[in-house]
Amino acid sequence: MTTDAQILSALRSTENSGVSGAELSQKLGVSRAAIWARIEELRQLGYEIEASPHRGYRLLSTPDVLHADDLLARLGKTKVVGRDIRVFEQTTSTNDVIEKLARDGVKEGVVVFAESQTKGRGRLGRKWLSPGRSGLWFSVLLRPDLRPQETTQLMVAAVTALWRAIHEETGLRAEIKWPNDLLLRGRKIAGILTELTAELDRVKYVILGIGVNVNLNPGDFSSDVRKLATSLKIELGKPFSRPDLAVAILRELDRDYARVCAGEFAAVADEWEEHCTTLGRQVAMQTGDRRIRGRAESLGEDGALLLRTEHGHLERIIGGDVTLER
Amino acid sequence: MTTDAQILSALRSTENSGVSGAELSQKLGVSRAAIWARIEELRQLGYEIEASPHRGYRLLSTPDVLHADDLLARLGKTKVVGRDIRVFEQTTSTNDVIEKLARDGVKEGVVVFAESQTKGRGRLGRKWLSPGRSGLWFSVLLRPDLRPQETTQLMVAAVTALWRAIHEETGLRAEIKWPNDLLLRGRKIAGILTELTAELDRVKYVILGIGVNVNLNPGDFSSDVRKLATSLKIELGKPFSRPDLAVAILRELDRDYARVCAGEFAAVADEWEEHCTTLGRQVAMQTGDRRIRGRAESLGEDGALLLRTEHGHLERIIGGDVTLER
Repeated sequence: MTTDAQILSALRSTENSGVSGAELSQKLGVSRAAIWARIEELRQLGYEIEASPHRGYRLLSTPDVLHADDLLARLGKTKVVGRDIRVFEQTTSTNDVIEKLARDGVKEGVVVFAESQTKGRGRLGRKWLSPGRSGLWFSVLLRPDLRPQETTQLMVAAVTALWRAIHEETGLRAEIKWPNDLLLRGRKIAGILTELTAELDRVKYVILGIGVNVNLNPGDFSSDVRKLATSLKIELGKPFSRPDLAVAILRELDRDYARVCAGEFAAVADEWEEHCTTLGRQVAMQTGDRRIRGRAESLGEDGALLLRTEHGHLERIIGGDVTLER
Repeated sequence: MTTDAQILSALRSTENSGVSGAELSQKLGVSRAAIWARIEELRQLGYEIEASPHRGYRLLSTPDVLHADDLLARLGKTKVVGRDIRVFEQTTSTNDVIEKLARDGVKEGVVVFAESQTKGRGRLGRKWLSPGRSGLWFSVLLRPDLRPQETTQLMVAAVTALWRAIHEETGLRAEIKWPNDLLLRGRKIAGILTELTAELDRVKYVILGIGVNVNLNPGDFSSDVRKLATSLKIELGKPFSRPDLAVAILRELDRDYARVCAGEFAAVADEWEEHCTTLGRQVAMQTGDRRIRGRAESLGEDGALLLRTEHGHLERIIGGDVTLER
């Protein structure tokens, strides 16, 4: 842990009582002057830190910025996801950054956030709006021991983890729209782009790209998109702390990734089905250039959507676009 | 076409009669002195070119080197495969080179050969021996409109194309061992590594990495490998022209890729089945950490191997290692 992260950890664990410069100095093994300098830097970043002769230093508030060290410290020890966190001010797409890391042999679990993306991507080559400091735009590198066709399990796990994190932090209950969207009042609040690189029978790595509309204002969306997308701020009527949500999401992702790796996908899928509004509905589905209509019946053991067509066939759908019909 | 390629084309089309410097100069629109200089360069590369006052220039022999322009000229117009050919003296792995090109947005069909590879790869992270100027080590970039699980079709098509090229050029009838090996007398003569990058429902690109043991000597193999691998030279008792075989393989690959893209995989699969010695045999199969035994029954429509287990189930196998049992 860096000195910054250690200071913030110490401040958080003594939130009400405060901690003196002398204590911090001793605990961290650096001079009181160095502590003072770091505290000044943190204040520059927006951390509101009170210094009083009696109570020492107290953390009054955390700014809505993504600070890699602080996220690492707050997340604490995880199995895989978030062992390494990097924050960029701006990237083309965080998936691009992770791809380079993947090819350089970086271990799984590394997470890259960007305060803004110039070429944020959604599924099927679509754009993903990612304006500065208003959402969580990040990617995670995973190297699961799965076959390529089992990769949908990770996408299902990621949506489920996102659902829990949003619910725990905000109390909101999102709807899961198969395969990869989270909606509030029928509008997109978060999405996941799953990209894999594989041999025919072995995944080399998977990149989960995740976008969450946290503090976007209605004006951030074009009028077309406004009917289709929303943000936590719009739904809650007030801004929400992005670092708080980021930590919660990474913790839940780590938990669900561990479940998939342990072969416990069924438990994840049960949770997914509970929150999925696509199931039981009459849907139309575009997959490649085929159009299939039918009733969304359940989730296959590999994460596929099982669709009962009008002819009674059960179709196994891996990807594509679902439209809810009635 | 470059001047080199044009000169070689002209020499090949007038193989017996020869062509004068004046004719070449006129045809190519460059000076006779320039023609002379290029001919000298080609001689340096090992092209044996006779110059006589009566018959002009005649191509007596082509060296066993991979010359990108010459390969392009000999291959002529193809639909996709070999529209662009690049030859490297040495690379880590030609798949690595193609991967960079793919990510830079290069069009499908580009082929990269290396005279030697320092990190040639086989399936499942295995090494592929690729010593200098003795085999064909190359990779092809494809951007098919397929779903990830349909990618095995390309691997089947590539093996089938390889089989035909080797048969046409040498008369040898190889055996196909599922999924991706060509054997002669039970020993590996060629192999294919298929790597894909995809979203869950859409292939972004596929890299076919192909290795053919052409002129390797028994001494090129370690004693372990010698029992498992062979070369055309060992089987034929004499060296075989690598450029001749390269051109034949690219032509056949182009043909089979067109068949897959046109939805004619069934025809490719029929050809594959005809030459596959795995079918009808009792095999054991390692896929991930599962071991399955049964009779290899047929090829699925997506390129999977259909295996009838001892319990009568039909198992669909995408990858893994087959061992022939009896």
